[in-house]
Order: sequence, then C-alpha cells, then structure tokens
Amino acid sequence: MDIAILKRVQERNDTDASDIRRLLDSRGIRMVNVMGGAGSGKTSLLERLMLQFGRELRCGVLEGDITTDYDALRIAALGVPVAQLQTEGSCHLDAALVHRGLGVLPLSDLDIIFVENVGNLVCPAQFDIGEHIRIAVLSVMEGDDKPAKYPLMFSRATIAVLSKCDLIDHTDFDISAASRFIRTVNASAPIIETGIGLPGDAELAHWLAGRPNEDEDEIRERFATTA
Amino acid sequence: MDIAILKRVQERNDTDASDIRRLLDSRGIRMVNVMGGAGSGKTSLLERLMLQFGRELRCGVLEGDITTDYDALRIAALGVPVAQLQTEGSCHLDAALVHRGLGVLPLSDLDIIFVENVGNLVCPAQFDIGEHIRIAVLSVMEGDDKPAKYPLMFSRATIAVLSKCDLIDHTDFDISAASRFIRTVNASAPIIETGIGLPGDAELAHWLAGRPNEDEDEIRERFATTA
Repeated sequence: MDIAILKRVQERNDTDASDIRRLLDSRGIRMVNVMGGAGSGKTSLLERLMLQFGRELRCGVLEGDITTDYDALRIAALGVPVAQLQTEGSCHLDAALVHRGLGVLPLSDLDIIFVENVGNLVCPAQFDIGEHIRIAVLSVMEGDDKPAKYPLMFSRATIAVLSKCDLIDHTDFDISAASRFIRTVNASAPIIETGIGLPGDAELAHWLAGRPNEDEDEIRERFATTA
Repeated sequence: MDIAILKRVQERNDTDASDIRRLLDSRGIRMVNVMGGAGSGKTSLLERLMLQFGRELRCGVLEGDITTDYDALRIAALGVPVAQLQTEGSCHLDAALVHRGLGVLPLSDLDIIFVENVGNLVCPAQFDIGEHIRIAVLSVMEGDDKPAKYPLMFSRATIAVLSKCDLIDHTDFDISAASRFIRTVNASAPIIETGIGLPGDAELAHWLAGRPNEDEDEIRERFATTA
C-alpha cells in the first residue's frame, strides 16, 4: 500500500481503536489480538487456552477471516461466545469491523476477549484494533528466520508464541536462532513454547491472566517506535 | 485496503505488468510468480526445481522479501542468477519493483525466471507482476481448509502445489479435502504433491518446461473472473 494512503487509513483506524479501548476499559474487559500466518495454529491455540481458563476467566472470541466461518464454529463448539468477522477480501482486521463484532458479544459476562486476526504475518500488525495485548504466533513449521524476515509483527508483540513445538523434531527449526531474531526487534516480549502436551499452554494462560493492561499511551508508543 | 484505492493502485500496476510481459515475450522468456504463506516452503521448492532443471532450462530468480536477503543467498549458493527485491514494509510485490529487478538479471542468458513473492497467502494474489504462470504453494502443515479460507490466490493460480507432503503423516491434512476446496474456486489448475524425496518435484519441473505461456488476454480474463 502506498505510504501516504496507508497513513490516512491508519489515522481513521486509530480513532476507532481508541474508542474500543475506552469502551473495554470502562467495563473492565481486556482484549487480546492474536496474529500470525495462515496455518500457524492460532485457532488451535485459542481452543486449548479456553480449556486452560475453564471458569477462571470468562472468555469471548472474535474470529477474523476473509471468508468462511470455520474457525467460529470450532470455538462455538466449546460453548464460548463467539462472533465471526468476515473482511470480504481484506488481508487484516480493522478497528471498525472489530467494533461491530463487539456489539454481538455479551460484554457484561466477559473478562477477556480474544480476537483472532486474518492469517497473515504482515498486514495485521499495521493496524491497532483497540487491543491491550498483542500475541504474535509463529509455528516451528514456518522456519526460524521468519522474525527477521517479517519483523513488524514481532516488534509490536506483547508476547511471542512459538507453536506446534510438539512437532519440532521433524523440522530444522532452531529455537535459539528464532529467539535471537525476536530479541533483535523486541527487547521485552516473553517467548513461550507451546504445542500439544507441552507446559507452554498453561504458562501462556497464567501470563495472560496476570498481565496488567497496557494503557493507551504505552500502546501508542509501541506503535510509534516500530513504525 | 479501501476498494476504490485498491482499484487505482492496481490499474497503474496492470500497465507496468503488461510492459513486463511484452519485454519478456520479445525475448522468449517465461516468468513464474511463486506465491504462498510465509514458511510454506517456496524457497526450498525453488532450490529443488533448480536442481531438477539442471541445464535443461536456464533459470533466473527474483527473491521478494520485506527485508533481509536470506533467500537470495540460498539461491545464489546454487550458482543461479538472482536478485533480491526488498519491499520495505509492503506485503506484496508490485510490477514496478519486479521491473527494476529484471534490469539486474542477465536476460539474454535465461529461459525462465521465477519470482518468489512475499510470504503471504492473501495480498500477492491481488497484483499481476507480469508473469505468465502463477504457482500457489500450500504446505500440508498449514491445514487443508486454507484454500477455502483464502480463495483468491487459489482461484488465480495456474498450478497449485501442496508442499512438505513428506511430513503429512504428522498432520491431519486431508489431500482430498484440500483438492476439493481448490476445485471449488479453480476448475483447471493441476494439483501437484511435492516434498523431499517425492516424485512431485520432477512432475512440476516437467509441467513448467512444457507449459505454453498464457497470453495477455487469458491473464486479464483470469484476473477479471476472480476479482
């Protein structure tokens, strides 16, 4: 996208995102933006997190996809309130669409809302959708060089999740190398290794439950310094 | 991206793409646009294709990345002429950048040029870069529902490649299901299963070597009917 055009689109989006954050803060709800490439295991991670939280935290989910409602059906099967957001061609979620989705969720009954972004390691990171926490998901099947090749998402992440780590023996993925690449662009985000049967899911749930929300100023600064 | 803005950007891009195709046609070179998500195995596929072709076809490569030259170094190690295209933040290649890259390659010595697009299952499919053949790569690690969830790339593909099929036993990927999803949006593209040690690489090389170039009219029609 042309830089000047992108700036204009983003300014409008930032206003919508601030509105969302004000709404959520007034209700004591935190929102988590889950980003990563297509097939990086975002929906599976959410399914396992819902089970981890049980009744500890009341969860809602917004499922972002270009088309289809497959992911929303997977979440609904767990009895979790979910709304499907269809971008109709667009490669990322924007704050306006998320705002509409929030109108469908039973906000009074929720402590935390997970928004699964469109599967794309690039564009979603450019758009604030009013979240308090950003998770960047990287599957070990994608290769350990990806944080260097797609730095923006990892630079803006509050937390980095390596997924499908139960399959790592079938790859040449080097966790130290990936972690070094992440550290090059992000000094502070915890890096958690998740996968079926691994302790990372519980660790991530624990971290999310205890994490204080970033406020608007902190979030603006994060977006400014990595633009 | 806003639909009206996207249309304007694409019109300019289409003119550049037609210029490229005219240049390549006048020199008898065919160009292949290799698209797929980050970590879907595009570079590995190209490495193996270069070995398949040997001296049968003289290959050149343009490597598209947002940043870094890791992939270009991998191709250069094979002794193949390669140029790195850095999009500097943009999520896809456009025809203008590809045109600049072609200026660096020794066109008189080449029969076929592979352009590896930015790792992204969404945006690259929206932009004609002057190619004659479009390959959509989907790794079996990404899930068999991806052609349904990200239909544009598969609808515009001249050929669909399932990659990392040597690892399929570690996944729940169903090749029949994926193929059905591809067929829903694309009636004609061959679907080839590739992976280390599998016959698909040779099959793909054979197909590419024998494929007549699509002409400008066919390509315009393909873009029009799937917009």
